[in-house]
Amino acid sequence: MAGSPRRTAGRRLQLPLLCLLLQGATAILFAVFVRYNHETDAALWHWHNHSNADNEFYFRYPSFQDVHTMIFVGFGFLMVFLQRYGFSSVGFTFLSAAFALQWSTLVQGFFHSFHHGHIYVGVESMINADFCAGAVLISFGAILGKTGPAQLLLMALLEVVLFGLNEFVLLSLLRVKDAGGSMTIHAFGAYFGLVLSRVLYRPQLEKSKHRQGSVYHSDLFAMIGTIFLWIFWPSFNSAPTALGDGQHRSALNTYYSLTASTLSTFALSALVGRDGRLDMVHIQNAALAGGVVVGTSAEMMLTPFGALVAGFLAGTVSTLGYKFFTPTLESKLKVQDTCGVHNLHGMPGVLGALLGVLVAGLATHEAYGDGLESVFPLLAKGQRSATSQAMHQLFGLFVTLIFASVGGSLGGLLLRLPFLDSPPDSQCYEDQVYWEVPGEHEDLAQGPLRAEELETRA
Amino acid sequence: MAGSPRRTAGRRLQLPLLCLLLQGATAILFAVFVRYNHETDAALWHWHNHSNADNEFYFRYPSFQDVHTMIFVGFGFLMVFLQRYGFSSVGFTFLSAAFALQWSTLVQGFFHSFHHGHIYVGVESMINADFCAGAVLISFGAILGKTGPAQLLLMALLEVVLFGLNEFVLLSLLRVKDAGGSMTIHAFGAYFGLVLSRVLYRPQLEKSKHRQGSVYHSDLFAMIGTIFLWIFWPSFNSAPTALGDGQHRSALNTYYSLTASTLSTFALSALVGRDGRLDMVHIQNAALAGGVVVGTSAEMMLTPFGALVAGFLAGTVSTLGYKFFTPTLESKLKVQDTCGVHNLHGMPGVLGALLGVLVAGLATHEAYGDGLESVFPLLAKGQRSATSQAMHQLFGLFVTLIFASVGGSLGGLLLRLPFLDSPPDSQCYEDQVYWEVPGEHEDLAQGPLRAEELETRA
Amino acid sequence: MAGSPRRTAGRRLQLPLLCLLLQGATAILFAVFVRYNHETDAALWHWHNHSNADNEFYFRYPSFQDVHTMIFVGFGFLMVFLQRYGFSSVGFTFLSAAFALQWSTLVQGFFHSFHHGHIYVGVESMINADFCAGAVLISFGAILGKTGPAQLLLMALLEVVLFGLNEFVLLSLLRVKDAGGSMTIHAFGAYFGLVLSRVLYRPQLEKSKHRQGSVYHSDLFAMIGTIFLWIFWPSFNSAPTALGDGQHRSALNTYYSLTASTLSTFALSALVGRDGRLDMVHIQNAALAGGVVVGTSAEMMLTPFGALVAGFLAGTVSTLGYKFFTPTLESKLKVQDTCGVHNLHGMPGVLGALLGVLVAGLATHEAYGDGLESVFPLLAKGQRSATSQAMHQLFGLFVTLIFASVGGSLGGLLLRLPFLDSPPDSQCYEDQVYWEVPGEHEDLAQGPLRAEELETRA
Repeated sequence: MAGSPRRTAGRRLQLPLLCLLLQGATAILFAVFVRYNHETDAALWHWHNHSNADNEFYFRYPSFQDVHTMIFVGFGFLMVFLQRYGFSSVGFTFLSAAFALQWSTLVQGFFHSFHHGHIYVGVESMINADFCAGAVLISFGAILGKTGPAQLLLMALLEVVLFGLNEFVLLSLLRVKDAGGSMTIHAFGAYFGLVLSRVLYRPQLEKSKHRQGSVYHSDLFAMIGTIFLWIFWPSFNSAPTALGDGQHRSALNTYYSLTASTLSTFALSALVGRDGRLDMVHIQNAALAGGVVVGTSAEMMLTPFGALVAGFLAGTVSTLGYKFFTPTLESKLKVQDTCGVHNLHGMPGVLGALLGVLVAGLATHEAYGDGLESVFPLLAKGQRSATSQAMHQLFGLFVTLIFASVGGSLGGLLLRLPFLDSPPDSQCYEDQVYWEVPGEHEDLAQGPLRAEELETRA
Repeated sequence: MAGSPRRTAGRRLQLPLLCLLLQGATAILFAVFVRYNHETDAALWHWHNHSNADNEFYFRYPSFQDVHTMIFVGFGFLMVFLQRYGFSSVGFTFLSAAFALQWSTLVQGFFHSFHHGHIYVGVESMINADFCAGAVLISFGAILGKTGPAQLLLMALLEVVLFGLNEFVLLSLLRVKDAGGSMTIHAFGAYFGLVLSRVLYRPQLEKSKHRQGSVYHSDLFAMIGTIFLWIFWPSFNSAPTALGDGQHRSALNTYYSLTASTLSTFALSALVGRDGRLDMVHIQNAALAGGVVVGTSAEMMLTPFGALVAGFLAGTVSTLGYKFFTPTLESKLKVQDTCGVHNLHGMPGVLGALLGVLVAGLATHEAYGDGLESVFPLLAKGQRSATSQAMHQLFGLFVTLIFASVGGSLGGLLLRLPFLDSPPDSQCYEDQVYWEVPGEHEDLAQGPLRAEELETRA
Repeated sequence: MAGSPRRTAGRRLQLPLLCLLLQGATAILFAVFVRYNHETDAALWHWHNHSNADNEFYFRYPSFQDVHTMIFVGFGFLMVFLQRYGFSSVGFTFLSAAFALQWSTLVQGFFHSFHHGHIYVGVESMINADFCAGAVLISFGAILGKTGPAQLLLMALLEVVLFGLNEFVLLSLLRVKDAGGSMTIHAFGAYFGLVLSRVLYRPQLEKSKHRQGSVYHSDLFAMIGTIFLWIFWPSFNSAPTALGDGQHRSALNTYYSLTASTLSTFALSALVGRDGRLDMVHIQNAALAGGVVVGTSAEMMLTPFGALVAGFLAGTVSTLGYKFFTPTLESKLKVQDTCGVHNLHGMPGVLGALLGVLVAGLATHEAYGDGLESVFPLLAKGQRSATSQAMHQLFGLFVTLIFASVGGSLGGLLLRLPFLDSPPDSQCYEDQVYWEVPGEHEDLAQGPLRAEELETRA
């Protein structure tokens, strides 16, 4: 804690230098590897005289924009609930997601669209990169307020690689279905962040306890995040699925599931609340669990009834988690989970994976008809039975939890490097450590302009 | 008013039990009746080898998402203007709209897409359910701050049924055109809510007068609602119309109408304001009247000029309503209209219905060409004259007002059931009755961190 | 300064009368000139039995809605950062953009879609009108807080005409490419506003200095504007381009460019900040420069790497501009630039134009294949060389700067007309001059309801 000017200057430069270094590196990799795909390249697209209406842009771009809104508005504002950490919540979301988009374009590109030495990009790579950024932001939620921006960039650097690797194992090797990412995004992001938060455990964190709550208007800002996540989640789960009925069904199932998780969250929050009062933390978060829980199964023949039941269970589990499990998580397991990502993404993500196991295991040719090909291609070709697909799904969850835990541990060790600029225990959840913060409004309440002032107007 | 613990516990359980009961009931009904339609079902969609590009999803989902944004962000935040009722405004919007989506999928499904014992769902049912939720939220606006969440759910339970019935009479029996719902949504929702508010009249409401106004930041939050409603209203009015020119024209007309209602609202607000000052209540609300007033006629050949005139009139009537009519409504008619829904949805809705009468009455084969078939099918087939269509439109308005008034009366009686948890007169417009409310920021104005604190950072 | 009642009454009436006059004039011009085009007119669309899927609506309306969001939510809230000017920022944005949409439909219509005495409108005219409104709002940013609403309407009246004329010269006469408007929107709007601000120079403006900063929550509101501009900028630059690969590529390039400008803005802001602290002004604005800088070249074969480099440079230049150039601009050149539009739109717009010169000059048949026709039709037809196209692009920038400067000067003279209602130096950046402002929340911090109050609930 020797406040020598040199160390201070060194820390001061960490964020700028890291940003410049990372941007330089991705720019060089882009120059070498990244190329327009056949739908974004002028020459390739016109090679075979395509009809413009066939361009993937028109099938996926509206969904992409909704996903993009969720990542930057939804996650950004959801985390603004802390009374003194709004600039950091929305600002570091902005920074780390922007970096994750570039870096994940490269990592996912190597795994999924690397041909003849090049990565080919278009609207699908944009959606996938946003999905990966989502996982990074979920992990961010677990450590919100306790790390600096340079640490977050390093976390993203590592997490994006492991996300890409895990996704590759699941989707390409195990041939698991997980369109909306109950496993690859939610469970992965949550347990990565939780393990990382465990490694960064701060026994003295109560020094910043007084900043850990919300204030009236910060809760309203957070509701902006909640509502935008809620309304656009149908687009999230349907963005990468098969075209036609696949996208349509995924959106519909998610829509139903979310209405049910909203009802169960309100029910449970009032039930467990003091004097039957509702708790904003539950409403802001658990109401979204319906989107998480159908992340794997939304594209399957879940049925509208199944979507309601799934959403209802997820909202219930999530609300109870906030009430009863989060305190235990800190006191017993030494996991300090600022946003309660275990309740919103962890448990509902695991539930969603298990629901995927169930629904995949029940898949039949009767239920899917010729549509089986686009949902379960290996089943359609007879290369796998429904039970086998279900087992692969289950194994995918297992792999994800391994990758997340190992990754989170590595991430924690990385972020504990002593020269990194981390806020002291007494300065957690505090914008002023990293931002110029304006003084508060002095005289908003001063009442009407004085008469003499107004006269000068005439 | 005997504060016995048993009654308190009973009231405490009203919301959770009602949520669980309603969710259970809709889930069972979903299990029995609701099925994927031929565009969301894997087997049905692939039955005839459709081109994916033909899936209704690509024609209506972007509009749906805009409508969804309006319902949850638009209505939710528009009502946040009250200084101490922000949690309830956005939270109860969230809850009652989520329930209305489920319940209205069933009710509208029975009326409009019930075949062989099943209700078939897809993007059109999603749009229609959101529309019905819009009507419920309009009624909510009239009673905002004066009812509890359990009362709101009961209101939605009743209103959704009457909405569906009224819509069925208008669209299916009378064959009235009302794409954007000047009648079925706006007039219905407004007069339902106003009559209900009349039945719930509170002579002692001035006890809560000090909470009935806005504060600076609550007005800014409300502008989020206003602007999202304003920008996406073209999607609202065009979401359910005929494809092609129908959607295109509806969006265009609504866009023009809204620009005109904005100009007239600013003009009138400054004209009637003290010292020429603008009033946020007018800007937040009356500027939207241009969207309401073309709800019936936007899909018709209204002409861009007609859209401007309609919007201008609606903004004028609405602003003058806020200034002169709302006070009278309370003092003379004992209708306490918290959000002024009579000015934004009531009068402009009726005006919009009458405009529909006029424009339908002027319809000719010359003006619509072969497009007459999709706007006025009965005219195209020669089964009705334009005058007859106009008379049917007028009768539709009459039917709507009857349904809304009778429904609002029934709703009022229902909500007056003595065991329901309603806030006392002195606790209206107050979040703390139903929510855990955080203490206000103590030391945001404390200035920069003390030097010693910052030193520990180095 | 004679506060005679007559002059006061005159000023009081300026806004209402101007609104009514302008609305009356545009309504008459709409009646005479504006007609549905062949995609919005019922008869014309059905004339040749088009497939509905071919209607331009489905190709451009989702992009339009994003642009619409940027204009009204993005620009509106971005300017809410001032502590006491939130109502005016979002309200006058609303008013002046609504008028600009109508007026620019007429002006751009005369220049671009005037046939046989009529202007034909549809989704493309909606996009173009929104673009023009964007330029007006950029200019508004330079004079924010220092002009009244009537002055802003007069500015829009003039600027829309000059915008349309400049755009006509560039796009139709010089055949310059500028889809996302680096020149026609950003450079034009910025320099128009800056020259106008120079003419309106207020040497005594420090009288309002205490209102020129932000407060904590006003900065969070401003971030709503920033993030919505950032996420939807890909739609902005791609909205008017050629269909298919053109829209797809423009969106992709803009997406990459914005991630890079975000990284460079965070890097530079921390580098030049006190103690390495980030500055909200930089994050709110300079992070968006990546969207501006590829406004001309996003539709070209810029390559993903090129997009990253462009965005990085723009973020850097813009951040350094805020830090070092804005103070000089006021002290040396007497240009008071409230929002720093020179840094966000001026310099990045000029950079974007020059980047367009470069990328156009490098265009080859190999790189574009048959797609050359839709990006550079004159090159494809052999009527121009790439170098000649580049020279035309450069000349387009020159023309834009001339139009903007002359226009801004004229605008300044117009707005200095002595009878116009302009706020005195001591009342700049103050909502109360034009709005009824509610008193501030008295007792939000009062803590929980008193026990006796709650008892009455039971």
